[in-house]
Amino acid sequence: MATVAAPESVKHLVGLETPEILKVSSSSRPTAVAGAIAGIIRHNGHTELQAVGAGAVNQATKAIAIARRYLAPEGIDIVCIPDFAIVTIADQDKTAVRLIVEVR
Amino acid sequence: MATVAAPESVKHLVGLETPEILKVSSSSRPTAVAGAIAGIIRHNGHTELQAVGAGAVNQATKAIAIARRYLAPEGIDIVCIPDFAIVTIADQDKTAVRLIVEVR
Repeated sequence: MATVAAPESVKHLVGLETPEILKVSSSSRPTAVAGAIAGIIRHNGHTELQAVGAGAVNQATKAIAIARRYLAPEGIDIVCIPDFAIVTIADQDKTAVRLIVEVR
Repeated sequence: MATVAAPESVKHLVGLETPEILKVSSSSRPTAVAGAIAGIIRHNGHTELQAVGAGAVNQATKAIAIARRYLAPEGIDIVCIPDFAIVTIADQDKTAVRLIVEVR
């Protein structure tokens, strides 16, 4: 498992909890998240997005589509593996969508 | 390119335009769409979802996560490749999210 930490600027942009999980909200800018994804993928070839709610899942999915375009010219082909996770927000359990991003 | 048509029941469930594109809306049931994805993947190893709007993208993404769980016990590991597409709805051009689903 790679342990390269994301730069502080990336953590600030997308609310990074651990080096591998990017928390995306409905107000996250897809291009900013895409830049974060591309940066982390270049470093360790793997990242994970977490989104709660339709707006957040939409921004996260668009961010991955944009990151694909950022990385394609470098010969890096990323795919996405959607899954569910239970997260606790304000003492309430919510179902989050987890989007694992990997190099194909 | 495989040309196996999806069964009529699948077309009815998810609004299938061509054998490979599943149109997902915000009111699509993720489990129903997941069943359609699993059925098509078993037949030709490839399908494509199209979603316009955050609610639709959310349902489509959840459907792929559920389809992964349907297919995993059969040893079929699917991945998702998000992209954009321009679609014309009621004479207006809209940006759709296209989710290509492939066997890894």
